[in-house]
Amino acid sequence: MKSICYMRPGVELIDIPEPEIAKPTQVKVKVAYASICGSNIHTIKGEADDHFEEVGYREGMPIPIGHEASGTVVAVGSEATVKGLKAGDKVTYYYNFYCGKCYFCRNGQEQFCLNVVSDSCGAMGEYMVLEEQQVFKVRDDMPLDKACLAEPLSVCMRGIDLAELRVGSKVAISGGGGVGMLLLQLAKLSGASLLTVIEPVEEKRQIALSLGAAFVIDPFSCDAVGEAMRITGGLGYDAVFEASGAKAACTTCYKILSRGGFLEFFAIYEPGFEFPLDLSDMWKREATVRTVFQSPYMFPRAIAALDLINTDMFICNKFKPEDCMQGFDAHLSGKPVKVMFDFTTD
Amino acid sequence: MKSICYMRPGVELIDIPEPEIAKPTQVKVKVAYASICGSNIHTIKGEADDHFEEVGYREGMPIPIGHEASGTVVAVGSEATVKGLKAGDKVTYYYNFYCGKCYFCRNGQEQFCLNVVSDSCGAMGEYMVLEEQQVFKVRDDMPLDKACLAEPLSVCMRGIDLAELRVGSKVAISGGGGVGMLLLQLAKLSGASLLTVIEPVEEKRQIALSLGAAFVIDPFSCDAVGEAMRITGGLGYDAVFEASGAKAACTTCYKILSRGGFLEFFAIYEPGFEFPLDLSDMWKREATVRTVFQSPYMFPRAIAALDLINTDMFICNKFKPEDCMQGFDAHLSGKPVKVMFDFTTD
Amino acid sequence: MKSICYMRPGVELIDIPEPEIAKPTQVKVKVAYASICGSNIHTIKGEADDHFEEVGYREGMPIPIGHEASGTVVAVGSEATVKGLKAGDKVTYYYNFYCGKCYFCRNGQEQFCLNVVSDSCGAMGEYMVLEEQQVFKVRDDMPLDKACLAEPLSVCMRGIDLAELRVGSKVAISGGGGVGMLLLQLAKLSGASLLTVIEPVEEKRQIALSLGAAFVIDPFSCDAVGEAMRITGGLGYDAVFEASGAKAACTTCYKILSRGGFLEFFAIYEPGFEFPLDLSDMWKREATVRTVFQSPYMFPRAIAALDLINTDMFICNKFKPEDCMQGFDAHLSGKPVKVMFDFTTD
Amino acid sequence: MKSICYMRPGVELIDIPEPEIAKPTQVKVKVAYASICGSNIHTIKGEADDHFEEVGYREGMPIPIGHEASGTVVAVGSEATVKGLKAGDKVTYYYNFYCGKCYFCRNGQEQFCLNVVSDSCGAMGEYMVLEEQQVFKVRDDMPLDKACLAEPLSVCMRGIDLAELRVGSKVAISGGGGVGMLLLQLAKLSGASLLTVIEPVEEKRQIALSLGAAFVIDPFSCDAVGEAMRITGGLGYDAVFEASGAKAACTTCYKILSRGGFLEFFAIYEPGFEFPLDLSDMWKREATVRTVFQSPYMFPRAIAALDLINTDMFICNKFKPEDCMQGFDAHLSGKPVKVMFDFTTD
Repeated sequence: MKSICYMRPGVELIDIPEPEIAKPTQVKVKVAYASICGSNIHTIKGEADDHFEEVGYREGMPIPIGHEASGTVVAVGSEATVKGLKAGDKVTYYYNFYCGKCYFCRNGQEQFCLNVVSDSCGAMGEYMVLEEQQVFKVRDDMPLDKACLAEPLSVCMRGIDLAELRVGSKVAISGGGGVGMLLLQLAKLSGASLLTVIEPVEEKRQIALSLGAAFVIDPFSCDAVGEAMRITGGLGYDAVFEASGAKAACTTCYKILSRGGFLEFFAIYEPGFEFPLDLSDMWKREATVRTVFQSPYMFPRAIAALDLINTDMFICNKFKPEDCMQGFDAHLSGKPVKVMFDFTTD
Repeated sequence: MKSICYMRPGVELIDIPEPEIAKPTQVKVKVAYASICGSNIHTIKGEADDHFEEVGYREGMPIPIGHEASGTVVAVGSEATVKGLKAGDKVTYYYNFYCGKCYFCRNGQEQFCLNVVSDSCGAMGEYMVLEEQQVFKVRDDMPLDKACLAEPLSVCMRGIDLAELRVGSKVAISGGGGVGMLLLQLAKLSGASLLTVIEPVEEKRQIALSLGAAFVIDPFSCDAVGEAMRITGGLGYDAVFEASGAKAACTTCYKILSRGGFLEFFAIYEPGFEFPLDLSDMWKREATVRTVFQSPYMFPRAIAALDLINTDMFICNKFKPEDCMQGFDAHLSGKPVKVMFDFTTD
Repeated sequence: MKSICYMRPGVELIDIPEPEIAKPTQVKVKVAYASICGSNIHTIKGEADDHFEEVGYREGMPIPIGHEASGTVVAVGSEATVKGLKAGDKVTYYYNFYCGKCYFCRNGQEQFCLNVVSDSCGAMGEYMVLEEQQVFKVRDDMPLDKACLAEPLSVCMRGIDLAELRVGSKVAISGGGGVGMLLLQLAKLSGASLLTVIEPVEEKRQIALSLGAAFVIDPFSCDAVGEAMRITGGLGYDAVFEASGAKAACTTCYKILSRGGFLEFFAIYEPGFEFPLDLSDMWKREATVRTVFQSPYMFPRAIAALDLINTDMFICNKFKPEDCMQGFDAHLSGKPVKVMFDFTTD
Repeated sequence: MKSICYMRPGVELIDIPEPEIAKPTQVKVKVAYASICGSNIHTIKGEADDHFEEVGYREGMPIPIGHEASGTVVAVGSEATVKGLKAGDKVTYYYNFYCGKCYFCRNGQEQFCLNVVSDSCGAMGEYMVLEEQQVFKVRDDMPLDKACLAEPLSVCMRGIDLAELRVGSKVAISGGGGVGMLLLQLAKLSGASLLTVIEPVEEKRQIALSLGAAFVIDPFSCDAVGEAMRITGGLGYDAVFEASGAKAACTTCYKILSRGGFLEFFAIYEPGFEFPLDLSDMWKREATVRTVFQSPYMFPRAIAALDLINTDMFICNKFKPEDCMQGFDAHLSGKPVKVMFDFTTD
């Protein structure tokens, strides 16, 4: 089958063997859409090459990538009977398969599962074979390009859960990419006030306003901290989400945090980046700093929340699998909120 | 000054002495709007008569009522300097003045303040004298009829806080009065899914839909429990708010609660009403039952949230103070979401 | 093998087929100790007879019972490799096997798992075959009679978690049986102050004092509510756990609850018992009422907490399996904190 | 009256005017005991000199210090009637007086009160005049040296509240001074398992063991991180409290944190110290980093918790006020858990 693979360097559409159901608990899915996550960029930049070597990929071997996809069930294993799945069902999926047995799974912390299987097969190919646990049915009338966003939505929802927002909380978001635009909508859905997006790209600021931001700040053309303090009457924001991945943005985010506020670092930063946390300031600010890793226990709510989210700007940049390079280039241009590969056309 | 007073029985617009600043920490406010709360109805039905006798009201003495109002500052005591209030400022108020010293105030539970002063002067008169603690400035461009809703909004926000909603939580609200319609909007602002309002009055169901309900149920013309379970795919709601005050509705609310769900009794029920809690069922359901009493620590966020709330249907039923009987009759008809008295016209 | 079975009516030690590993994910355990839970009494009173008929038990068929046990691994399935279990390991177990796939498991609510397998084999027999998920290794030097208490400890810990205790919270416990005595110790371990146990049996009150209760109340010889309010200076308790199963105790527990307090009904009450919740009183009290069903995600912490718990009074009432009637009679006498069957002697 | 004052440089026992009740809401207290807090050391090192200049202290003027004390009521203002205080009552106090009116007070965040009065008079003198809000009665049979510890206990309790400990949580504490030893006891009171104290002073490690630590680590003579990971079976601690103020300890604390764990920086670090937070590591660890500033809403529970705390090692280093230099030197030696000045002897 065709699969977009990481080739060390670069990505290509490659023919690889079609996966087949190997255990009775598995389900085979024909992929409809698969989208690019910012972490894929870190991968194709080579940051995970050591890991790939370790798990057995030799030079020249294609490495299937991607972990955001939707599609249609084509086969169901004999013991995959819990969810009532059958051929033809529209589904989305979660890329992590948790063991359910280890210390962390038994402790209610699946995100740290010691036996997690995360990357058995990439999402950017024609077919995937998944454990039934990972497959989630969506409504028959749910468009599959929208359903493709369940995974990024789930992890953003977890970030919102952990920030303990309440109606009227003042919220700022740094970065208007896919994650930022989901966090924006989720913050709005959580009753945020003075909802502010900090983003240098003009088009993305306009999209942010159309998705519910009350304010946007261009950090390249003004003093972002000053502007943020002006918006909040000098109090700062109750919660700030850093989703740009830029070092300078981290400092801005910390400075615009209200006393008693939450700061969530949501992006993947360059390896080894250390944020200098001023402990004297932090003490008086009584802040909380958090990160979010994976999204366990979230999919039922994430699927319910798909209906609450405007995904128009997430599904309007589709590329054919054979144009995968153009798709990645478009993502790297920084303009699209989300880039998606369309596997529905033959 | 003119004041709408409870006369045991009935309400009348009565001339009573205008209150004056008696302590340097006080602020005098000219009332613009004052609205009817369901609890006022309990008062004029005589349910608090014993209390009034106890605190010194003799037969025939007018009893000022009301605790939801907005207005304009007319005088500021010499020690009321914390909030920068000055004559002409638009304000709203919270009817409870907390002592800040007792066990509960020091324990972070102002709502149980042992020295609370709640009803020094009713809100339904031309002037109020308040402690600075109770007075909250609103933006200059905030309409005062909207600002009048800060108190009911604050208590509904507290109810929402205590229900631990998350984006995607399934929520139902029983009763489409002022409280129900605020809870509805706050639940929507909290990311509720399958948001359902149960309300027998057709006009109110229409308003509920216009304010964001995804479903409405008429409990008089259909099997409300069956309908609710159909909407939720047999799972029930994660949070149910009972805001109708009707006994039968309490049972419905319990039955449509999901496993692990929250049930909040938000109305004032007839004195002595005991809800029969089936402990065997409750055990398997692992439900949480809560009530909400007052709204301490809420006003800064409530005022921020005024901008997030559609109040059109709350401010469209205004009466002149001299037509107070008609105003109360309108409330009792069950049609208006909210009834308001307009003290701005001379 | 020998197994204590419910015979409708009565319990008997019966010869039943020894279970064998049927799936590669399973583990076989030789039981050392199995203890009586209050819910077993409900079973042998016939309250679950309809259920047993439904799942296929015909008249006269022995029904294996029990869900609290410890023992030694005797065989490990070829795919039961996550926990490093091997023959000879000391273990305890959790009687529920969760599917990990259904709506509730994926929603972080294993306690409501739609495919839970709870009673494949009773704990009160010589051998059990369990899924690896259910088996938990304990330290080599952990006495197995103590390890037998992991399950009741886990469910009490969940009750304590849900009550949101903080150091200095005032806590009362109604009922000094196994559950009450564990709640007592856990409340103490949570920093409870004025820790009070309400229990009519003199011996149990003495044990409660020895395990850390600051006060005990005999509800049969004094006005329990009055006494509780005296102890708490009129404020009542921040959290009250009802673990006696007695109807009258439920009312006492409600009345001694502080404003803003938590009331947890922890016992199994007679089918259909409805606790009359006075909504007017509840409103002013702003109480929270909860129940606790099962103990998902708890075993790693429960096993850690075994070291923090004094179990002397839980392991001092041991009976031989062939004396099972005497064991149950001892439990029914209300004197022992816990009754245990010893399967270690041949 | 005699008062231990900061003299820029050094401390001296100085005669200063005795404070008198100036407002009817105030209470005058004769001090019995006053203790040294680590923050006093920062003061006498000159770190707050700029602040003192700003608020009007000229060179040579004595600056009263201290904020931990107990004593006896000697006079009560005419409006200080809420708490039933009368001359002769044993009391302790909280050094912050909150306005109850500003944004933060109304938002349930007294710790950020914009009008807080924190240092009207130092605690290390013969008399204090306080607002009734700040004065807390203790039981008649409570020793006043023990009562002197209410304030440090209150702030440690707040730190424990914010760390969301549960029974069985694995906890480590870095630093065995007054704060560390209170955190240790509170962690134990919260059901901590594998409770570990990291402290270089042998005497303090012994005290830690006597107060309930299960393990102690000398960071100067062994690999503290390796030792901590050995104790926790490689998992790390669910919560780590840094209370030593040492830079190197901060790094150790971060490294021994479990996945999903809480790290609280509890000490005051040298001005400008920036802790380098490795965001890549932090992401996978999904940690929470917090600080604790002040202890609002805590005193009722802190006073209840005095009975739960062993204070023997806190009250055994008493100095006469005239020996204040020796007292501070003793504190600086690092040996005593707490140093206290005894104002009870004439």
